[in-house]
Amino acid sequence: MKEFVVEKAIQDIYPDDFAWCYGCGRLNEDGHHFRTGWQGDKTITIYTPEAKYMGIPGFLYGGLIASLIDCHGSGSAALALHRKNGHEIGDGAIPPRFVTASLNVDFLKPTPQDVALKAIGTIEEIHPKKWKVETEVYAGETLCAKGTVVLVVMPSTFLKKED
Amino acid sequence: MKEFVVEKAIQDIYPDDFAWCYGCGRLNEDGHHFRTGWQGDKTITIYTPEAKYMGIPGFLYGGLIASLIDCHGSGSAALALHRKNGHEIGDGAIPPRFVTASLNVDFLKPTPQDVALKAIGTIEEIHPKKWKVETEVYAGETLCAKGTVVLVVMPSTFLKKED
Repeated sequence: MKEFVVEKAIQDIYPDDFAWCYGCGRLNEDGHHFRTGWQGDKTITIYTPEAKYMGIPGFLYGGLIASLIDCHGSGSAALALHRKNGHEIGDGAIPPRFVTASLNVDFLKPTPQDVALKAIGTIEEIHPKKWKVETEVYAGETLCAKGTVVLVVMPSTFLKKED
Repeated sequence: MKEFVVEKAIQDIYPDDFAWCYGCGRLNEDGHHFRTGWQGDKTITIYTPEAKYMGIPGFLYGGLIASLIDCHGSGSAALALHRKNGHEIGDGAIPPRFVTASLNVDFLKPTPQDVALKAIGTIEEIHPKKWKVETEVYAGETLCAKGTVVLVVMPSTFLKKED
């Protein structure tokens, strides 16, 4: 079976000012560069971790799994609201950005480091400005972690500097 | 007031095989090197983030806060069980290690990058092999995030290689 590839990711079209996140910012040279796109009506982020992100040798550290679920959630909510607003990646419209209100992760199994991880998201609008993303993280066919992220649309004042 | 310093940290005495975590392993050259010790009957981890761990410029990315709460929780549980077993850091006994079962983070305010963060933990034994740590993360005097971590004693088989 042909391996799925995320061709169009929401993080590819974030405005430059919002593209610096260590988790998912394309402009952060050191970061993970998580990229989140549609796969049918689900969202998907595929990521193969570098060796340094170990918890104990051979297994990922929990913080990376939490980070993946967090940024995947943020990207998923942005994808969904962008589509609700009548837009798709590539039509030139600037997508919304979300901030995380809460993050919950259940660690089900030790997550190996030598296979690509897939975070698969199911999105629910719980308020026009508040969205929930349920995420499952697979290493190969093994479900290693589950997470729930609640996100709110980033206030327009968020980046304003105090004079 | 004199700044509090964590002099004796549980991560300083983890066996080498368990000292590689990107969050809290002293042997991981690239990692955060979170160090967790007692402050009265609370636990504390103090950490000043590098600039690259931004979410948007000037503010931390959520994954780092989740990682701090996760590793701080793991270290706190190890401190508490070590003490329950009659040991203190420096007496030569090998401390227990925990793995995270679940992690919950409420992000209360954007967390600035230019001040030291303090994670303060309150520990509860909910079963001899299952502990809960409630953590508050402060940037200066500002409470930026709260978290709950449930941890279980690492099974002795966890590191065994399959032949």
